[in-house]
Amino acid sequence: MPAFSSHYALEDIVELSQRDDLGEDTPVLRATSDARTAGYDAVCVPLTNEKWKARWTELCILDPEESPDKLVIEQRAEAWRSKPAFFRDEVTISRLEEAENLIPLISDWLELDTSDDWVRHDAEIALQQELAFASYLNAQCAILPPPSNRTQVGSYARAINACLASIPYMELSVRIPIYDPATVLPGPSRSPSPVESAPPSSATGGTPPESNMTTWEMWDTIRTICGYNPRLTLALDLTPPLPLSSSVLDQWLAEPVRHIWLPASAFIANAKGYPVLTKGSQSFIRDIVKLQPNIILSGTRAKKHTRGGEPAYAQYVRHLEKTSPAVKAAQTAGTVENFALGYQDYLQAPLQPLMDNLQSITYQTFEQDPVKYRNYEEAIFFALSEWPTPGKVTLCVAGAGRGPLVARALKAIERSKREAFVYAVEKNPNAYVTLQERHREEWGDAKVKLLFGDMRTLEVPEKVDILISELLGSFGDNELSPECLDGASRFLKPDGISIPSSYTAYIAPLSSSKLYNETRATKDPKSLETPYVVMLHAINILSDNGGGISGTCGPQIQECWDFEHPRKDAALTEQGLPLTNSHNTRSAKLTFHIPNAGVLHGFAGYFEAVLYGHVGLSIHPDRMAQISKDMLSWFPLFIPLKDPLYLPADSELTVSLWRLTDVRKVWYEWYAEAFLPVPSSSVHSPIWRDTLSPMSPSAEHGSFLSPVVSTPTFVSSPLLDVPQLTLELPPQHSDKTREGVSLVKISQTALHNPGGQSSWIGL
Amino acid sequence: MPAFSSHYALEDIVELSQRDDLGEDTPVLRATSDARTAGYDAVCVPLTNEKWKARWTELCILDPEESPDKLVIEQRAEAWRSKPAFFRDEVTISRLEEAENLIPLISDWLELDTSDDWVRHDAEIALQQELAFASYLNAQCAILPPPSNRTQVGSYARAINACLASIPYMELSVRIPIYDPATVLPGPSRSPSPVESAPPSSATGGTPPESNMTTWEMWDTIRTICGYNPRLTLALDLTPPLPLSSSVLDQWLAEPVRHIWLPASAFIANAKGYPVLTKGSQSFIRDIVKLQPNIILSGTRAKKHTRGGEPAYAQYVRHLEKTSPAVKAAQTAGTVENFALGYQDYLQAPLQPLMDNLQSITYQTFEQDPVKYRNYEEAIFFALSEWPTPGKVTLCVAGAGRGPLVARALKAIERSKREAFVYAVEKNPNAYVTLQERHREEWGDAKVKLLFGDMRTLEVPEKVDILISELLGSFGDNELSPECLDGASRFLKPDGISIPSSYTAYIAPLSSSKLYNETRATKDPKSLETPYVVMLHAINILSDNGGGISGTCGPQIQECWDFEHPRKDAALTEQGLPLTNSHNTRSAKLTFHIPNAGVLHGFAGYFEAVLYGHVGLSIHPDRMAQISKDMLSWFPLFIPLKDPLYLPADSELTVSLWRLTDVRKVWYEWYAEAFLPVPSSSVHSPIWRDTLSPMSPSAEHGSFLSPVVSTPTFVSSPLLDVPQLTLELPPQHSDKTREGVSLVKISQTALHNPGGQSSWIGL
Repeated sequence: MPAFSSHYALEDIVELSQRDDLGEDTPVLRATSDARTAGYDAVCVPLTNEKWKARWTELCILDPEESPDKLVIEQRAEAWRSKPAFFRDEVTISRLEEAENLIPLISDWLELDTSDDWVRHDAEIALQQELAFASYLNAQCAILPPPSNRTQVGSYARAINACLASIPYMELSVRIPIYDPATVLPGPSRSPSPVESAPPSSATGGTPPESNMTTWEMWDTIRTICGYNPRLTLALDLTPPLPLSSSVLDQWLAEPVRHIWLPASAFIANAKGYPVLTKGSQSFIRDIVKLQPNIILSGTRAKKHTRGGEPAYAQYVRHLEKTSPAVKAAQTAGTVENFALGYQDYLQAPLQPLMDNLQSITYQTFEQDPVKYRNYEEAIFFALSEWPTPGKVTLCVAGAGRGPLVARALKAIERSKREAFVYAVEKNPNAYVTLQERHREEWGDAKVKLLFGDMRTLEVPEKVDILISELLGSFGDNELSPECLDGASRFLKPDGISIPSSYTAYIAPLSSSKLYNETRATKDPKSLETPYVVMLHAINILSDNGGGISGTCGPQIQECWDFEHPRKDAALTEQGLPLTNSHNTRSAKLTFHIPNAGVLHGFAGYFEAVLYGHVGLSIHPDRMAQISKDMLSWFPLFIPLKDPLYLPADSELTVSLWRLTDVRKVWYEWYAEAFLPVPSSSVHSPIWRDTLSPMSPSAEHGSFLSPVVSTPTFVSSPLLDVPQLTLELPPQHSDKTREGVSLVKISQTALHNPGGQSSWIGL
Repeated sequence: MPAFSSHYALEDIVELSQRDDLGEDTPVLRATSDARTAGYDAVCVPLTNEKWKARWTELCILDPEESPDKLVIEQRAEAWRSKPAFFRDEVTISRLEEAENLIPLISDWLELDTSDDWVRHDAEIALQQELAFASYLNAQCAILPPPSNRTQVGSYARAINACLASIPYMELSVRIPIYDPATVLPGPSRSPSPVESAPPSSATGGTPPESNMTTWEMWDTIRTICGYNPRLTLALDLTPPLPLSSSVLDQWLAEPVRHIWLPASAFIANAKGYPVLTKGSQSFIRDIVKLQPNIILSGTRAKKHTRGGEPAYAQYVRHLEKTSPAVKAAQTAGTVENFALGYQDYLQAPLQPLMDNLQSITYQTFEQDPVKYRNYEEAIFFALSEWPTPGKVTLCVAGAGRGPLVARALKAIERSKREAFVYAVEKNPNAYVTLQERHREEWGDAKVKLLFGDMRTLEVPEKVDILISELLGSFGDNELSPECLDGASRFLKPDGISIPSSYTAYIAPLSSSKLYNETRATKDPKSLETPYVVMLHAINILSDNGGGISGTCGPQIQECWDFEHPRKDAALTEQGLPLTNSHNTRSAKLTFHIPNAGVLHGFAGYFEAVLYGHVGLSIHPDRMAQISKDMLSWFPLFIPLKDPLYLPADSELTVSLWRLTDVRKVWYEWYAEAFLPVPSSSVHSPIWRDTLSPMSPSAEHGSFLSPVVSTPTFVSSPLLDVPQLTLELPPQHSDKTREGVSLVKISQTALHNPGGQSSWIGL
């Protein structure tokens, strides 16, 4: 659950200092004990006071030209620059015990991003001085004043980066308004097309919501310049009234929000006069609490609201937290969220059951899944029930593990009242011991025969009607189910059934500074090119379902490829094995619409499988609830990018992904390109237009270069004027994207994991 | 000088094979000897023939569905995929000696970028097979067929990258048409503004020249996906007729162009019937020969032109080479180009005369500069001539080295007929020995007094009138001239003169795959953040002098900052030294217009200095010829980027650069952001517009966030509707850039060299 802090302004401290009952206490110590009594975990107090502001202003701002003792002041300023230090009466705290449970606010009048080089330079020296002092007093975190001048946000960020380098341990939290109210209209966040001729926005007219990304923009620039330093965090300022639409606020869920600045002025009074938040703020708080931020309440003692007094504010936020869907799900037994507690955003190397023999404890964890095996039993039951030919049906469980599917198969057989026999194949010698035990004690020779060996090589006494396997990974094929079933299909009858009968891989582009830092943390460059299994938590899916300005974009989550079993008319060896693995290579090129500016850190990978008929398994976010609600066995795949890719609002992201194979292994390679739609008048050629438009039909008929280049008439005479050349263009080369729209390429990633250099998939 | 190769088509080889005078020769061996006789260095021959094409097509293209023995063919295809190999009669060469002086052409019918996954997969296997065979025969380089399908260029590139990994040593050269004639109009390359309402381009109408960047675009995507592999090069195909405007072709000068494909059909006949090239092609050849490409002439035996025969083509190109400005300059003694032979694009760590004591040989190299010392003598002469007060003038040479400036000072004194005395200060004990020798043998006590020590600490007997120094680096201040002269100014009279009196640093954005690979080659990450001194050669300056669509862009080469000497009314210690080095910090934020798409690899750094009055020194490309022609002492600075930054046509590049200092060192930090102008209707807020517009005046008055956030009325009620908020916007917030234009941020680099981590400048 989140912590709560109480903000004490300078006036509050002054007021406390004037109280005659202070005794041994300093004003700040008294503030801290008062706050604790009021149920807060900490206080948030300005580090310096007016005296320091006055001195710094005299030294660094007031123009010496106008002062008589100009040179004297400049001398003092230089003396300060060479040895920056406070006088005792310029700071609000000076003892270790004062700094406990206290979050210092750095002087908010420091002009860290003024356009005046010299003032900015001195502000940076002062910032270093204040942070060094806070660090001396063992403060764990300091809150920095917000950037205010976008043209100098780079200088602001560079100064902070220098502080992160010179001040050890301490966390620096940049205070940023959640958005810029001056630029927002309430309502849904869908952006108007850049190419619809919208009325030019003006200071007097309303403006669409994308523009409230500008404060996130500044944050993104700052943290990028600071190299995603893990000690750089956010103090998100909720002073501005929140719009009802949340989608423009979602990007904050993917950022290191450590503090929420929530002033009493952001609350309204309900019918009874108690402080409550607006709908927009309520839903945002409910979302953001999953990051467990420290909530800094400000102005709660000012009696802004007639009822409830100081405690009412924190009580209300606690109430919101209790009604947060994320928090509730995490507290409900049987949900993935609950099952995954402690695993959020934690990178796991995917299992490699083919290469490694799993431990019994691993089998046990997965056997706990109430949904997966229920669905398998259903699928087997329907397959048996609908099996056309009368008489005995033979089943084979390929990869029986400790036997859960065998047990379910027997249940299904019983329910279906069919006569049937089950072969159970397993290559893990240790699990095979467990199988033998269950075979003797539960199943018996009449119903089950155990076979020890690799399903790709071992011989089965007879061909079977139904082949049952559970070889799926988070991305469907990523644990080599296709390759294994190629082997197992040897002992499936031509008209036999495979359960699963097919599976599909899906991806969606995501942003997550947490996951980006996690992948970098290992210091191993390969870790930036390795897919992981992750319970995604502090992330934001960047795509939406809009077709995009160009009209060529797919849905928010898109299909990469699928596999079907059994394979139809394949060329095989006498042993019934494929001669090569070529048929299991795949490639996908997908285009996503990115409605709001964001940073791409990688892709979420999901799978959906058809077990039999209408019975399936899915971790596709939009469909898992219908197909396999509360299934626990698979977290999504996280496919990382080595370097973040910045995506402007309304850009279009094209992702190329390959499943590749050689004799030793199977692996994925991927890269991405970003495009921005602009009016065709800005771009200069029909070819440019339709060739840069991903998946444009005209591209299908391939090269137009070759004919042009190879036709001698084009080049036989330099006098040939080029307008004739353009006439040679086949007409279908124009307008492949929506009329009037062109896509300009703006950036590209590297090719990731070439040659499977960091491949975790071995044959 | 470039090499020349002769292209033999398959027909040519067949024809040769039918000759009865072959004797021991194979057709290819005969072709090679014929070519050598005709004055060529090598031949360029297809590696495979029609037999191979037929087999591959049958196995991989023809649809088995239609063939009776469908499965048989699929079996054979699988057999080939599992062990790809040639039959002897499918290839044109088979012996080592045949492959000597031969450049194999990979089968150009391989559909490496078809949209059909399966055909593409088989084409890649065939490509691997052909390259492996060429490598077996020790071919040094193979030429790959051009990409033809932009939608699959990623797959084409991934396949090449896989080959680079699996085939050792061999260079793979991608054949790319220099541009796409179908998309070009002749004439100047200035692009129309994306926001002028140009008539929408269509297949029938003409189209502006940016679009001929598309073949470069493809190349850029390919080499980016191949990670700038140094074994990936370009075979630039000059088949298309070249436009007169060259600016759109300049980007090729920054790429690894190893071959020029030049068919006889690209030549026209001159009055006498001899083959010559068009104006556009002539000037491009003259430029590109500086990269010393191998020129592959094709079709020269087809008698396309009535006069001159086969030799005429090569002769003509050799003639162009002789008249190439770059080549001529390199051959003219006394030019920088000649002086720098062998140093082109070679990275040198800048000198650090303050930290290191230079070697005598280093002094000697620089003393050879005929121009630098002449200009110093001129400056001193004019300074003395115009010196107001009569009587003796005292000079001080701060950093006398081996004495060249002392000698020039004495010459200037003689010419000026002034009575004068020279103090010579030097801290290098070794150079000081040379000084003593010259003092005894040439100068004598009457004219010169030597002083041994650091100019920042040593005492000089009297204050001097004129302070002379040569402490400048390629970037002006980068060898710490400002810091040194701060020290030396102690012994300059208040109204004294400093020679130089000022100097300015300039930068321009550049593209150079060579320099990018050079900086990466060291494998030391710091090398990617260290400025180097480089004789820039295979580069392209990406900016132009256009103000840009937004109207906020500066010129092609822009000023960062300057330094003036002596400093006016500075605060100093009793010893006359500054208390801190704060006054020598600088920062610059510059915006460049990028007319054509390109990749930013770093920045060229230049300096210009005023020695005295109208006498100066400059390596600013536009002004060096007037100010200090043929000066040899300084190559430009190269300020690298860690990762290339892609810039679309008509984008705007904002560069932030800082000169920073602490007690130990001085260093630079830098980063860049790219923006794309779009019509305002596409972007969603007046604030967005003017705050993202670099250097927009409105930004000067700083924050609009603070007022908005702090004004209680904004937040006191959630019922406040936001249109009112927008009304609060000060009117000057609209239209800061040119009417109707907005800038959308599209990408950003990291902050480079933070904290001077790879600083090469020590105090």
